[in-house]
Amino acid sequence: MLVSTLLAPYYAVIFTSLRTPDDPDGYAAMAEHMAELASTQPGFLGIESARGADGVGITVSYWDSLDAIHRWGTHVEHRVAQRLGRTRWYEAFRQRICRIENERGFDRQEV
Amino acid sequence: MLVSTLLAPYYAVIFTSLRTPDDPDGYAAMAEHMAELASTQPGFLGIESARGADGVGITVSYWDSLDAIHRWGTHVEHRVAQRLGRTRWYEAFRQRICRIENERGFDRQEV
Repeated sequence: MLVSTLLAPYYAVIFTSLRTPDDPDGYAAMAEHMAELASTQPGFLGIESARGADGVGITVSYWDSLDAIHRWGTHVEHRVAQRLGRTRWYEAFRQRICRIENERGFDRQEV
Repeated sequence: MLVSTLLAPYYAVIFTSLRTPDDPDGYAAMAEHMAELASTQPGFLGIESARGADGVGITVSYWDSLDAIHRWGTHVEHRVAQRLGRTRWYEAFRQRICRIENERGFDRQEV
């Protein structure tokens, strides 16, 4: 559920959102489909996601280049999901593209 | 609950974690205290956080410099929390420091 440590530098899209109460089933199905579709795209490195009971969700996807992020952002099925996000599913969102400079990790079973 | 759009470039710490089942009250109290304490540190710009029912949590804090991130990482109270995280609260975590290159946002009430 956590992406393994990767070799920096690489890139991430931090997508933070606040859901409307509308269409939980349709949203969940699309979110799952988008995560699966993203994972088949060139340059995809991994994805992490969490949504709390207050409706705030954060999804971070990791990519090997800004080009890969741009291609995924303009994928035709992703565009359809983005449109539904604005019209129906999201009260608000932020999308931040960033370059990972360094990272560290901890795994209990390795201690 | 979402941080307003900021002027890139700036920096973020993406902290992704998987909780143990231990000590939910102690963890929740410390998480709240750490978010409050972080918000009083020099260079702090904002924080976003979500944890789902599967135990995966993502907290993203935003900072105006790498120095500010380093200072917060070595704050004495934060060090105590980090130690408890490794010994008790986290099954695993990843901490990724990144530079935000660009961002966009959507707010329904502004449409």
